[in-house]
Amino acid sequence: MSKRKYSVILGNLGNTKDRFCGGYKDSLPTLEMLKQAVKIPRVEGIELVGTWDITPQNAREMKKAFDDHGKKCASIIPDIFADKIYWKGSYSAKDASVRKHSLDYTRKMCEAAMIMDCDLLNIWPGQDGFDYMLTADYDQERQWFTDAITTLAKEFPKIRFALEYKPKEPRTHSYVARMADSLLMCLETGCKNVGVTIDTGHSLYAGENVSEAIVLAKRAGNRLMHMHFNDNYGYWDDDMIVGTVHNVCYLEMLYWLDRTGYDGWLSMDQYPFREDAAPAISESIEWLAKYDAVLQENRKKLDELISVGDAVQTSRALRSML
Amino acid sequence: MSKRKYSVILGNLGNTKDRFCGGYKDSLPTLEMLKQAVKIPRVEGIELVGTWDITPQNAREMKKAFDDHGKKCASIIPDIFADKIYWKGSYSAKDASVRKHSLDYTRKMCEAAMIMDCDLLNIWPGQDGFDYMLTADYDQERQWFTDAITTLAKEFPKIRFALEYKPKEPRTHSYVARMADSLLMCLETGCKNVGVTIDTGHSLYAGENVSEAIVLAKRAGNRLMHMHFNDNYGYWDDDMIVGTVHNVCYLEMLYWLDRTGYDGWLSMDQYPFREDAAPAISESIEWLAKYDAVLQENRKKLDELISVGDAVQTSRALRSML
Amino acid sequence: MSKRKYSVILGNLGNTKDRFCGGYKDSLPTLEMLKQAVKIPRVEGIELVGTWDITPQNAREMKKAFDDHGKKCASIIPDIFADKIYWKGSYSAKDASVRKHSLDYTRKMCEAAMIMDCDLLNIWPGQDGFDYMLTADYDQERQWFTDAITTLAKEFPKIRFALEYKPKEPRTHSYVARMADSLLMCLETGCKNVGVTIDTGHSLYAGENVSEAIVLAKRAGNRLMHMHFNDNYGYWDDDMIVGTVHNVCYLEMLYWLDRTGYDGWLSMDQYPFREDAAPAISESIEWLAKYDAVLQENRKKLDELISVGDAVQTSRALRSML
Amino acid sequence: MSKRKYSVILGNLGNTKDRFCGGYKDSLPTLEMLKQAVKIPRVEGIELVGTWDITPQNAREMKKAFDDHGKKCASIIPDIFADKIYWKGSYSAKDASVRKHSLDYTRKMCEAAMIMDCDLLNIWPGQDGFDYMLTADYDQERQWFTDAITTLAKEFPKIRFALEYKPKEPRTHSYVARMADSLLMCLETGCKNVGVTIDTGHSLYAGENVSEAIVLAKRAGNRLMHMHFNDNYGYWDDDMIVGTVHNVCYLEMLYWLDRTGYDGWLSMDQYPFREDAAPAISESIEWLAKYDAVLQENRKKLDELISVGDAVQTSRALRSML
Repeated sequence: MSKRKYSVILGNLGNTKDRFCGGYKDSLPTLEMLKQAVKIPRVEGIELVGTWDITPQNAREMKKAFDDHGKKCASIIPDIFADKIYWKGSYSAKDASVRKHSLDYTRKMCEAAMIMDCDLLNIWPGQDGFDYMLTADYDQERQWFTDAITTLAKEFPKIRFALEYKPKEPRTHSYVARMADSLLMCLETGCKNVGVTIDTGHSLYAGENVSEAIVLAKRAGNRLMHMHFNDNYGYWDDDMIVGTVHNVCYLEMLYWLDRTGYDGWLSMDQYPFREDAAPAISESIEWLAKYDAVLQENRKKLDELISVGDAVQTSRALRSML
Repeated sequence: MSKRKYSVILGNLGNTKDRFCGGYKDSLPTLEMLKQAVKIPRVEGIELVGTWDITPQNAREMKKAFDDHGKKCASIIPDIFADKIYWKGSYSAKDASVRKHSLDYTRKMCEAAMIMDCDLLNIWPGQDGFDYMLTADYDQERQWFTDAITTLAKEFPKIRFALEYKPKEPRTHSYVARMADSLLMCLETGCKNVGVTIDTGHSLYAGENVSEAIVLAKRAGNRLMHMHFNDNYGYWDDDMIVGTVHNVCYLEMLYWLDRTGYDGWLSMDQYPFREDAAPAISESIEWLAKYDAVLQENRKKLDELISVGDAVQTSRALRSML
Repeated sequence: MSKRKYSVILGNLGNTKDRFCGGYKDSLPTLEMLKQAVKIPRVEGIELVGTWDITPQNAREMKKAFDDHGKKCASIIPDIFADKIYWKGSYSAKDASVRKHSLDYTRKMCEAAMIMDCDLLNIWPGQDGFDYMLTADYDQERQWFTDAITTLAKEFPKIRFALEYKPKEPRTHSYVARMADSLLMCLETGCKNVGVTIDTGHSLYAGENVSEAIVLAKRAGNRLMHMHFNDNYGYWDDDMIVGTVHNVCYLEMLYWLDRTGYDGWLSMDQYPFREDAAPAISESIEWLAKYDAVLQENRKKLDELISVGDAVQTSRALRSML
Repeated sequence: MSKRKYSVILGNLGNTKDRFCGGYKDSLPTLEMLKQAVKIPRVEGIELVGTWDITPQNAREMKKAFDDHGKKCASIIPDIFADKIYWKGSYSAKDASVRKHSLDYTRKMCEAAMIMDCDLLNIWPGQDGFDYMLTADYDQERQWFTDAITTLAKEFPKIRFALEYKPKEPRTHSYVARMADSLLMCLETGCKNVGVTIDTGHSLYAGENVSEAIVLAKRAGNRLMHMHFNDNYGYWDDDMIVGTVHNVCYLEMLYWLDRTGYDGWLSMDQYPFREDAAPAISESIEWLAKYDAVLQENRKKLDELISVGDAVQTSRALRSML
């Protein structure tokens, strides 16, 4: 098994807002957040949000800061969700000029990624979807989206494009909603450098079993490219510390990540609205490290339990492992 | 039956944000929003959010503006949710100074209400609740909340305090979460001027049948004081136009509002993120007016259907009514 | 547009059970249910459940009964869910002898279908899935399932195999859970005669927008083979009369069925636990006929609304159409 | 703190059905199930379902069997849910003769309870509720229900009547749905011997935090009378082994049961559809015993964490405790 590589999203260390309160904390300068991030134990990589943290202009300076800290850029997340130009979609917007803008902007982020020695664009198309019935052309808009990703994937064959699915929010329905529809889109592009990011919280409240989603991605041509970790109560993207609601599922995830040969990042993606950010993010990593230790000690036993399929035996074993 | 009295929340006409995008629209000055609101057909009342729209300082000026437009102040909604002092609760905050601040601030809103000739404070305690297990003292914090409401209700016996329940958001769990727990709190205060606001969307995604919630409030001593209307997909507070997802339930609500003798406001509470606000809010009122017309024509038939309890007969009748 | 073809599932007219009560009604002989079914207005087809209603042995007799009534066999639904041999799965069972039994049994149902002049097997694999984490080999079990369907599809190239997905029940997680994962499986078989059945209720409580699911099936190679209609509250497979909870979505479905060229059956699938079965099922057909009439009158307007994408215009139009 | 008293429901050892399959296992005679139940480690009490397990006729014989095994009857659960006379409700049925039958039958169960030296009737009114909108008189039907419970509570002042709430199933909506509405009904009866049973699974999929529900019951006059334990995925009453999906919440529950002075039974209520029943039920008890040991060692630390309210500290402590 490959060694775990933990990373964090820089912006999670900053100010957190909800739709009522414009910010519970003070905003921090990017480099200050970076200083805090690199001190979190076990962290080897950092994810950057486009525009907020990185642009083609500041990319070389940022690369130097990363090198100085001895950290890698795990991914770049283009901001196609917070800029209000995308309020009615990015790659799938009905407005052709917005679709063009989305493409051009993502190209710039690809260039920034190359400067950062990063080969992964994490695409979270939060605004691409619909709110009301009978207002969206599901066929045309999905086609526009697929065309844009195909164009990008062909133009930048060395960049991997990982679609981060989410069932809803901010739209009432997202086009890239669950693992299986994301995989259908990957297949439609015909490009091997298009894959999927699992955000464990998105998957949990999409009604998926995360481990089954990992397997689906494997079966569709090894399409799992990235992992975002957090926990929630199963109904919404609460973006909480790993392990504070659910437990068994994380052990199962690590098991299946290994079974499917995943060797990418384990990145934390939280919204520590009312918590100190760095320690809250650190907690998630420590929970995962704890489950990982359980896995290392019990891998053969887990193989056997999965093969036998008896809930009583599994329960009994979990009581002694956890 | 009393005549329907429609109202709107002024802030719904302004900028709308989500936790990713700081604003999809431009902000409008209060008096500009007021101009738009009063032009919405059938609107007789306006709800104001404390601090944002109204303070003791501007209350007289605002009253004059209302009088000039011939409209009433339907309620005042103290802002105990968007000011970051309340990030860990208002009346139930662990920090005693925040609890005191919440009380003092609400007193000022009561004074503003009296200037506005308004007897209704709509209390939405969005920050009162908890996020993580084993971090909250459910007993003590509920007691603090109840004590605060009791204090206010006794100090201002001519003001009615309507608790607007919501199962979650922004906290993962709210203390005032559903109709029945809100009623238990009303009973604990021992004050007749404490009651409940139903937000139809909150009720829908809380797993309630809204009409049954209306009946529960009646049975607990006629505690329904206010109604906020919107629609959603049943999983989240999507704050959409009434009637765009659900239909039958609104007809049933109007029926039971009449059966229980409700004579308060029918107020619209939406987040028209990507829509023109005034027409979107107007749509909700027009849907309700449409269901109201159906009710007026078919009240006796509905009495009979409810008494008989046969789903086939109800379905057949609805097909001809709607 | 092709004319609507309505059908019903014969068993829906019989006894209905839940996990507590072994039957709310008396069981009826198959031919008595058939007599009731053919009298439901607009019904042209009947779906039969394997073993319960049809076997290779009685297929000729059943064909004659259908001919006498002038009705068609819309589909055959193999019983791989109620026979307790399948308690831990059918095509994906860990027990190889159960997997073999499932295949052999389905072959017999294919033969019965051919006798009935029916080219559609509606496969609802209710027991194929898992209940507990760390008890299932998601990869191996999905492979077994896919292999079985591939085998059948190749052996019976004139039969179409429609996978009826459902997120859960009776298992806590089904392998064929939503539209997109069903389509991935269709693609894995490499067989054009493998497709999907949408049960509108399954789709609603899977968090899908049904119309978007219709479009996904079109895009994956015209894979929508069958439709089951019912309504629910969005959280569970309540199997209710169409139109008694939701309305707008059915209009949208009919629109997209036409846009994607669907020319299959519109079949009713309900559990009228406490209602007279035939009239309850008839109600669903009449609601659909009502929405169909609205569609016929307003198709161009709907094209335009979908193209424009303005919720206020859509709401306004719906108020006048419905 | 009082010693934990574990019990099981006898019927959980028998055949389990769902609405598709009439039984996955063979039925066992009552006394055979009893033999298995008493052998489950730590079990001191057994719950009996009326009619199935106990009648006034066999009560003395059953009492002797219990005495021989040295076990107590933890509760009697009247069967007002599986007998099809109750298909449209028991105490709240529109049919007056059914309401009378329900009362008379429950009286007999009270007599059986007294013979068993059991003072607890666990009332699960599964059929009392409604399916379709505009078919139920929420006010009248709730009144009938309340009247029946009041009558029983006054006739049998030494029996405690514990209402077991559940949001839905088999009805789409139950009248006794969540903790708070159950408490409102307790208060309406005016009887101190009317209280509530928490089924942890019902509470989880009702959107409650179970521990907060425990506190609500305490505040409404110490109304928590009984506990049923199981686990689920948060969306449905999966009736699974405790601890196989959720973990932290059970530790929190035991903490709050102690804080509120609960000294009743901890009873297991599962549906081991595809598992050996006795070992599956035993697993739940062992998980609870495990969490109980954690609690005994860390009670002071938990007091402090709840008082401080910092999610990072709670997470860190849980990592070392669990």
